[in-house]
Amino acid sequence: MLERSRTAAVIIIGNEILSGKTRDENSPYFAAQLRALGVDLSLVTVIPDIVEDIANTVSECSRRFDYVFTSGGVGPTHDDVTFEGVARAFGVGLAENAQLTALITRKCGEGLSRTAMRMALLPEGAELVNVEGMNFPPVRIKNVYVLPGVPEFLRAKFEKIKERFRQKPFYIKRVYVEEDECRIADALSSTAQEFEGVEIGSYPKSGNDGFRVLVTLESRDEATLVRALERLLGLLPSKIVVKTE
Amino acid sequence: MLERSRTAAVIIIGNEILSGKTRDENSPYFAAQLRALGVDLSLVTVIPDIVEDIANTVSECSRRFDYVFTSGGVGPTHDDVTFEGVARAFGVGLAENAQLTALITRKCGEGLSRTAMRMALLPEGAELVNVEGMNFPPVRIKNVYVLPGVPEFLRAKFEKIKERFRQKPFYIKRVYVEEDECRIADALSSTAQEFEGVEIGSYPKSGNDGFRVLVTLESRDEATLVRALERLLGLLPSKIVVKTE
Repeated sequence: MLERSRTAAVIIIGNEILSGKTRDENSPYFAAQLRALGVDLSLVTVIPDIVEDIANTVSECSRRFDYVFTSGGVGPTHDDVTFEGVARAFGVGLAENAQLTALITRKCGEGLSRTAMRMALLPEGAELVNVEGMNFPPVRIKNVYVLPGVPEFLRAKFEKIKERFRQKPFYIKRVYVEEDECRIADALSSTAQEFEGVEIGSYPKSGNDGFRVLVTLESRDEATLVRALERLLGLLPSKIVVKTE
Repeated sequence: MLERSRTAAVIIIGNEILSGKTRDENSPYFAAQLRALGVDLSLVTVIPDIVEDIANTVSECSRRFDYVFTSGGVGPTHDDVTFEGVARAFGVGLAENAQLTALITRKCGEGLSRTAMRMALLPEGAELVNVEGMNFPPVRIKNVYVLPGVPEFLRAKFEKIKERFRQKPFYIKRVYVEEDECRIADALSSTAQEFEGVEIGSYPKSGNDGFRVLVTLESRDEATLVRALERLLGLLPSKIVVKTE
């Protein structure tokens, strides 16, 4: 029996992504990182800088998944409302975090306005994670990790906390097929039915890559994965299999 | 008074995106296209190839937004379950579409298996949109447009239907500021409060671009936008404004 997978959701908060002004670099980063950590990323969602949307999405994701990562909306300006949304998701208030006030003052200097100091207002019960050397450390509230939107900052912070999420890894096999998807559907379907713990994906390519479909097989159980691959290769005419890796 | 904005949600369906194997090219495409069409993209969500997830997400998005676009999961293999999910979202069954059967047979040849012919099973009440010249036309069910996952195919199909979504355009102004976000938060906040129809965004840059924050102002009302820009420029010390465009 495989242990239960840990699941995660990524919530990207920012009008600039939805309006096409900025390309979201953070969800592809999370997808790759979480996969390498053996965590099942089960949802990515991009939502606007609206308190109610953030509250509803965080609340639902926190219930459904083991870990939730948010990106964006933690700066000092009027459109930074992530902490307000997260607080509302958990039905708690916002309270000034003295440690954060000190860090912000160190970075921005004294005499900041009330607006700018909103950055130091965290949901009650929030914790700063791995504070050392960071202007603005990741903030955790229950199973929700709040991270900034700027990709460089987000990556630096996630790097510092990622080992706490590591699980058993995924193994992957790839089969490159020179045939239309319609013609291999049965072989894929029967292999998928026989090996339930193996996830089989089929991705047609439109370009001229020397193959027409990439088939992937993935599992946390390497021996089962190898057996599933052998079964699939037994079902496909060998002349259409360009390579396996 | 501005007319009510039309809203849209994009649902990207595919394990390959969530597992980091494939980068999602479709949601950035939709973000740019919908913005140019004057449509408010209000949600992007990436979900796995699971019927129940698709059903729940489509059902909720169809109620909340004017238009819903899905990408992926419409091929002939076992992991293509988008139509099943959409049918369940609307509480209808799947029925063979004769027009689609003919198109698929034309593309893949005769004698396809039942598995492969699942592609021709559409939710009851679905309509093929702009059929001419396409192997697999976009499918519409109520306000939901079902499109393929391969970016090249998705774009070709969306190009053919996009004019039906066109609204009044957005106008945008950009102000490049050489100052920390903390120090301009008040100016942004008071401008945003005064001009409610203008959306003001503030995006700190980590790199060395000759400015530290990009401020954007957007509205469907050009005259109001110009007044908001003037107000903001009046509130910011001129020496920190690198340029406006």
